[in-house]
Amino acid sequence: MGKGGMSQGEKKDGEEVNMAAWLMGVNTLKIQPFELPSLGPYDVLVRMKAVGICGSDVHYLKTLRCADFVVKEPMVIGHECAGVIEKVGSEVKTLVPGDRVALEPGISCWRCDHCKGGRYNLCPEMKFFATPPVHGSLANQVVHPADLCFKLPDNVSLEEGAMCEPLSVGLHACRRANIGPETNVLIMGAGPIGLVTMLGARAFGAPRIVIVDVDDYRLSVAKELGADNIVKVSTNLQDIAEEVEKIQKAMGTGIDVSFDCAGFNKTMSTALSATRAGGKVCLVGMGHHEMTVPLTPAAAREVDVVGVFRYKNTWPLCLEFLRSGKIDVKPLITHRFGFSQKEVEEAFETSARGGTAIKVMFNL
Amino acid sequence: MGKGGMSQGEKKDGEEVNMAAWLMGVNTLKIQPFELPSLGPYDVLVRMKAVGICGSDVHYLKTLRCADFVVKEPMVIGHECAGVIEKVGSEVKTLVPGDRVALEPGISCWRCDHCKGGRYNLCPEMKFFATPPVHGSLANQVVHPADLCFKLPDNVSLEEGAMCEPLSVGLHACRRANIGPETNVLIMGAGPIGLVTMLGARAFGAPRIVIVDVDDYRLSVAKELGADNIVKVSTNLQDIAEEVEKIQKAMGTGIDVSFDCAGFNKTMSTALSATRAGGKVCLVGMGHHEMTVPLTPAAAREVDVVGVFRYKNTWPLCLEFLRSGKIDVKPLITHRFGFSQKEVEEAFETSARGGTAIKVMFNL
Amino acid sequence: MGKGGMSQGEKKDGEEVNMAAWLMGVNTLKIQPFELPSLGPYDVLVRMKAVGICGSDVHYLKTLRCADFVVKEPMVIGHECAGVIEKVGSEVKTLVPGDRVALEPGISCWRCDHCKGGRYNLCPEMKFFATPPVHGSLANQVVHPADLCFKLPDNVSLEEGAMCEPLSVGLHACRRANIGPETNVLIMGAGPIGLVTMLGARAFGAPRIVIVDVDDYRLSVAKELGADNIVKVSTNLQDIAEEVEKIQKAMGTGIDVSFDCAGFNKTMSTALSATRAGGKVCLVGMGHHEMTVPLTPAAAREVDVVGVFRYKNTWPLCLEFLRSGKIDVKPLITHRFGFSQKEVEEAFETSARGGTAIKVMFNL
Amino acid sequence: MGKGGMSQGEKKDGEEVNMAAWLMGVNTLKIQPFELPSLGPYDVLVRMKAVGICGSDVHYLKTLRCADFVVKEPMVIGHECAGVIEKVGSEVKTLVPGDRVALEPGISCWRCDHCKGGRYNLCPEMKFFATPPVHGSLANQVVHPADLCFKLPDNVSLEEGAMCEPLSVGLHACRRANIGPETNVLIMGAGPIGLVTMLGARAFGAPRIVIVDVDDYRLSVAKELGADNIVKVSTNLQDIAEEVEKIQKAMGTGIDVSFDCAGFNKTMSTALSATRAGGKVCLVGMGHHEMTVPLTPAAAREVDVVGVFRYKNTWPLCLEFLRSGKIDVKPLITHRFGFSQKEVEEAFETSARGGTAIKVMFNL
Repeated sequence: MGKGGMSQGEKKDGEEVNMAAWLMGVNTLKIQPFELPSLGPYDVLVRMKAVGICGSDVHYLKTLRCADFVVKEPMVIGHECAGVIEKVGSEVKTLVPGDRVALEPGISCWRCDHCKGGRYNLCPEMKFFATPPVHGSLANQVVHPADLCFKLPDNVSLEEGAMCEPLSVGLHACRRANIGPETNVLIMGAGPIGLVTMLGARAFGAPRIVIVDVDDYRLSVAKELGADNIVKVSTNLQDIAEEVEKIQKAMGTGIDVSFDCAGFNKTMSTALSATRAGGKVCLVGMGHHEMTVPLTPAAAREVDVVGVFRYKNTWPLCLEFLRSGKIDVKPLITHRFGFSQKEVEEAFETSARGGTAIKVMFNL
Repeated sequence: MGKGGMSQGEKKDGEEVNMAAWLMGVNTLKIQPFELPSLGPYDVLVRMKAVGICGSDVHYLKTLRCADFVVKEPMVIGHECAGVIEKVGSEVKTLVPGDRVALEPGISCWRCDHCKGGRYNLCPEMKFFATPPVHGSLANQVVHPADLCFKLPDNVSLEEGAMCEPLSVGLHACRRANIGPETNVLIMGAGPIGLVTMLGARAFGAPRIVIVDVDDYRLSVAKELGADNIVKVSTNLQDIAEEVEKIQKAMGTGIDVSFDCAGFNKTMSTALSATRAGGKVCLVGMGHHEMTVPLTPAAAREVDVVGVFRYKNTWPLCLEFLRSGKIDVKPLITHRFGFSQKEVEEAFETSARGGTAIKVMFNL
Repeated sequence: MGKGGMSQGEKKDGEEVNMAAWLMGVNTLKIQPFELPSLGPYDVLVRMKAVGICGSDVHYLKTLRCADFVVKEPMVIGHECAGVIEKVGSEVKTLVPGDRVALEPGISCWRCDHCKGGRYNLCPEMKFFATPPVHGSLANQVVHPADLCFKLPDNVSLEEGAMCEPLSVGLHACRRANIGPETNVLIMGAGPIGLVTMLGARAFGAPRIVIVDVDDYRLSVAKELGADNIVKVSTNLQDIAEEVEKIQKAMGTGIDVSFDCAGFNKTMSTALSATRAGGKVCLVGMGHHEMTVPLTPAAAREVDVVGVFRYKNTWPLCLEFLRSGKIDVKPLITHRFGFSQKEVEEAFETSARGGTAIKVMFNL
Repeated sequence: MGKGGMSQGEKKDGEEVNMAAWLMGVNTLKIQPFELPSLGPYDVLVRMKAVGICGSDVHYLKTLRCADFVVKEPMVIGHECAGVIEKVGSEVKTLVPGDRVALEPGISCWRCDHCKGGRYNLCPEMKFFATPPVHGSLANQVVHPADLCFKLPDNVSLEEGAMCEPLSVGLHACRRANIGPETNVLIMGAGPIGLVTMLGARAFGAPRIVIVDVDDYRLSVAKELGADNIVKVSTNLQDIAEEVEKIQKAMGTGIDVSFDCAGFNKTMSTALSATRAGGKVCLVGMGHHEMTVPLTPAAAREVDVVGVFRYKNTWPLCLEFLRSGKIDVKPLITHRFGFSQKEVEEAFETSARGGTAIKVMFNL
């Protein structure tokens, strides 16, 4: 059965059955019916068209957990997505059926101090696609608040729309680190997060970007996507001092902001040491939980450490960058799959293997 | 020989010989003549009246080094000071002989990006009292730029003037952490730096301050000086989780900013864990160089780490807080000494012993 | 009929009839039944206990309009209020019946960019007590979102709770102008808004506050409430230069921030001229619509003009200032009335007359 | 006599006589000898190669004054300049003879609060090229502090170097208004200042820029230089409401920041009305001194007014934008002249006439 077969859902008495990819247990994903909640006055019904696989999705599949979140019941997976509006709630004025939209996956409470204070990403009541116990969006249809569905400009595809989610991580990191045309940027790690952060930094105007990794292939991709300079490093802690020198030389001027998109003792130590006095290190990657790093000498040079959690208010900016061509995410989409049981399994395996796979995308 | 004897300097042909406390080697301080540079057009000649002993002074005396600075030649010690103007350079319009002033000890270059950008404390060309190879101010007289000499309000004593230096460390930390009437503050460590940070936080309006230490006496001093709550902790890393809970309970509401005024793995881990999502940890103390701390989970709650190096533009604010009574530093001055060879040695021993000594002050 | 008579509402079949003060037309207020909406899951039912009269309430009564808002249908008046929780919605976890609360009067949409970006006070969909066509809170009971009802500390009275609303105007202005212990403050106008701004500036740590008015009585009240210095001025535009000099002399140092709490050509011109280079003028009062002021020379000294509209996230801070005693609003409450037809009319007349009336308060 | 003749200076005893353009009186410029001060240890001697004419230069020539500055004695004119290092002071480490440099024209005191606090452009002791009584730089040679001479990247010409000065005005305005990739920008006035502000806003990432003028030619230049949309307006105050609507439609989305680069009642009123709630208006132009504008309704929408005075720390950013090609200033240079008496007079007349002249440049 081809694309749109089982996954499309059979019609029961003329009614379509909504199908979704359920995480049932370790390494077990099943396409099964997914009953949607009723459409509230401020909600929309969206037919999913493009859904990407995130590292956290893979992590849940392999271990049923991610950070402090644990999957205890079957859960629909997926949260990087875009689709087409099918129905709108009675109070929705901004969207009409047929609109192509990218979905921001988190619904915050708007009653807590974080929400009211402009940092809704820190809301403790956040309901986020595919973060247990909330269902995700790898499904034929989802119901979502209209204000979290952002209309795509005509020249932005649905796949690019789905890429707003990973891109948002990079843009939020750039905003928190205050990247602009006066910020020379170092990026530790050329994986998907390192790459979206690089694209973001460039779009925010960073004049010089040096990216660092242990892997030649990743570095070559980073170079193609616009890094000014790349530096290959080892995983050996003893090499830090020498590598810092090499990195600083590759920059040729002071490093104003470093993003650690790996999150290991070595990458963070390198970032802290390489950054100029008064600069910032933004910790994006989450390799190690506890870290052993030269924090004191960095603090004594007023190198601040800035953390990130997801993102807030990034979709409009993503879409503007995509519309204007300041960011091109298409080269990041390396693999595509349909929405059948077999393809879902293959897609996740492809993403898990890494290698040349950057972003694996479902077309529904 | 009493105060003003040898230390006052003998007159050679009617000319006074300027005497200073020279650090000659490990554990060796000698009062000896100190020839002053000529008075430039924007300089003033100040007769020192009050000089405090800082932890770094003691550190230099015991090890001839502090952080990356090494004493290679005999150096006049001391940098917390106040005195009376004796002479002013030809272009000085803001001060006249007889004015009582507190001295900011660092002379920056005003040509580098840090100086021009408003962060002169990060100037790599900084010439700072008693940071090798620059001489300090424990002397009868010093020559200093007029713009670094701040006139004392009538109700502020010379000793309080000398206290502007340690107080500046606390105020700069509070500014960097953006303390105000909406910031509930945790302070790890009730030593001199913890105490000046506490006084600063209170003066900046912090509604609730909890202070933590391993020592009962220090905690009792902190309580007397205005802490809302104190928590005694152990030095055992295993106790962190339990102590975090105790500290949060002692605060009774979210901890917005934590100052680690000790700088050890345990204090920093406690601070990172205890601070609310979206808060800040300001690392002031410098106990450990490399730190093993749960940086990743803190970053993932957007708890930022802010470093401090000395201070900038703090003297006017110190003097305003002292004038208005919002800060009272007098209780911090626990011991006083005259400026003779014997008293200098005793004073440094007293400071080095710690115990009930908070600030040891010379009256010259 | 005494307090709690007609206004308390008669019981119909054991059911209390909720009574409210309706603005029926110019100069016409009537206490009449007011049917409450049903209690939503996140709402609370509050029995009003203290309601203050605002200048805008009087303006509506006299003209049926305020700024661009026009009263077209009978509307319940009042928005400065506090009361006791009577019932809570099914999802409310933060409040229980019996809790004493102060009410923030505006309900924003939480779907627009302003709401999501942390500036909900600018929400174009705002539903605000007694801003047409939304009913106000001068009533026996109101239904309101729980997250806009802030529990009073034990030592804060219901009347003080009602004062959070006008006080919020002052605190929001202070926040926008970034008042702190390094900001010397000028306040143009010693009316109710000038006074709450002064109390706010003091609580935020302003070291010196000079307040200016044309009226001796108002100035004497300001002095009693804590102004460091007062300056009496004329309404004559020709006097500006001379008065600026007088004001600057009264400050004795640079004026960092000026609040124009009157909003006339003369007050704004004075503020713009008196403020130091690099300072701010915060325009709070709304006397003139179009203004003729020396904006260019102010801009050329980088004196910025900061506007304010209502407030956001101010209630917790108000309550903290009231709890700690950093602000005492009790002296502002000069007149008290019960909630009968006659007293409502008298109360509004008292407020409209001005004179020694600062805040007129209903006790229900 | 050709270029380098009289203006080059005759050699007296083998010594070159330094010649400069002196403002002697209204409409009177004379090339005459200009004796240089001695070279201090941190100074450099620069041979001028490119000097542009600024509106203020023309203003001084026509009226002997500009804002509050009055020319009372003959003064060398000119302050937009670049040249080649001929000699360096004993302590200069960053430059060597032969280096091509752009000169920042203002020398601040580094002793006042503004200088120390990072806003040296507000220094009351500023010594600025061709601001009386300080001589300017339209001369064969000048002596200047090395830290105000910025080395040109290889691909940036001396003429472009001289353009850093007017460009700095635009960049400083963009920084003060916090322009970035989320700021849609309106520019009132397409003169030289409007154009450099537009180039700056684009380089800072502004996604949409609408520019407004009364003149078709200027608008066509703006369009060629990159404006997304242009709007022609009248000088009639009655048209404001209608034009605001037209401008907002031309933007197609909210106007986040408006720059008034003209500074008249009409342009400022338009800017204040057109800008979205919570936005900013940056007043750059200085057409009117006193302004009659709807400041109150703007303030009530929290539209802030931001002023600018010159610039600070802009040269490195200018050079980075020129190096990277993010800004191209070459099209702004419309006329070139040599440095002879006749050409100097012609050049100033050309600049004064306006018309198609944007920037008039001397090649020395």
